Amino acid sequence: MRRGQRPETPRGASALTAGALADLYRAYIACLNRQDWDDLGRYVADEVEHNGRPLGLSGYRAMLARDFEDIPDLRFEIELLASAPPLVAARLAFRCAPSGLFLGLNVNGRTVSFAENVFYAFEGEKIVSVWSIIDKSAIEAQLG
Amino acid sequence: MRRGQRPETPRGASALTAGALADLYRAYIACLNRQDWDDLGRYVADEVEHNGRPLGLSGYRAMLARDFEDIPDLRFEIELLASAPPLVAARLAFRCAPSGLFLGLNVNGRTVSFAENVFYAFEGEKIVSVWSIIDKSAIEAQLG
Repeated sequence: MRRGQRPETPRGASALTAGALADLYRAYIACLNRQDWDDLGRYVADEVEHNGRPLGLSGYRAMLARDFEDIPDLRFEIELLASAPPLVAARLAFRCAPSGLFLGLNVNGRTVSFAENVFYAFEGEKIVSVWSIIDKSAIEAQLG
Repeated sequence: MRRGQRPETPRGASALTAGALADLYRAYIACLNRQDWDDLGRYVADEVEHNGRPLGLSGYRAMLARDFEDIPDLRFEIELLASAPPLVAARLAFRCAPSGLFLGLNVNGRTVSFAENVFYAFEGEKIVSVWSIIDKSAIEAQLG
């Protein structure tokens, strides 16, 4: 929450149409799914922030690479997509088996299904900010 | 996750423009903040679903009324808004003091700040489906 700032106004800006921005976002997700880290800079800005942390492109790439290490069968699937330049919002669906701890939960190789609701602010054709929430409660319910 | 269905296609449909749908959504949030339960049916369809559960308008209203009972200082604030008919996606910011358990956490009257990333599918001018995720990890971090 960033009080004092006009609500609903991310720092990004984009001249792309809603359709073009949706296509760009789908290409970004395809890049993640093929773990094409050399291509990530086409979609993600050097000064990218993730949940308020200034990760930068290298930190963002490292976070994603680690996700795929921790979750060998990780795959991003777009369930809902709302493109409203400069914002994209997506509901991502996952069905995968984190090998150890995940979000502090002892998943230990069990297959779990969960969603992530995530917003992206674009500047030009690149992601500059990400606000992500993963449905931890859903995973807890499956672990029993 | 609804496999076998074409991704990104909610069951809703809306003839409203993105701007009009955003205005309608802001009016819905204002309705919640004044706890105007008699007016809720202007924004929410009789057959509304919430996270896959067919609550219906009366169940949805009961859920919201209970939220305000459990969290006396509850207030919905829109931080990000992506309007892409028939979908609206919002990041809502909260700073409030749940009086007892919240999401299974013993908050017990402490003030916590957290976000909700939520999608709505509209049919005409009414919400028919909601997919909500609350940032439970952020609350856990504040409880220490």
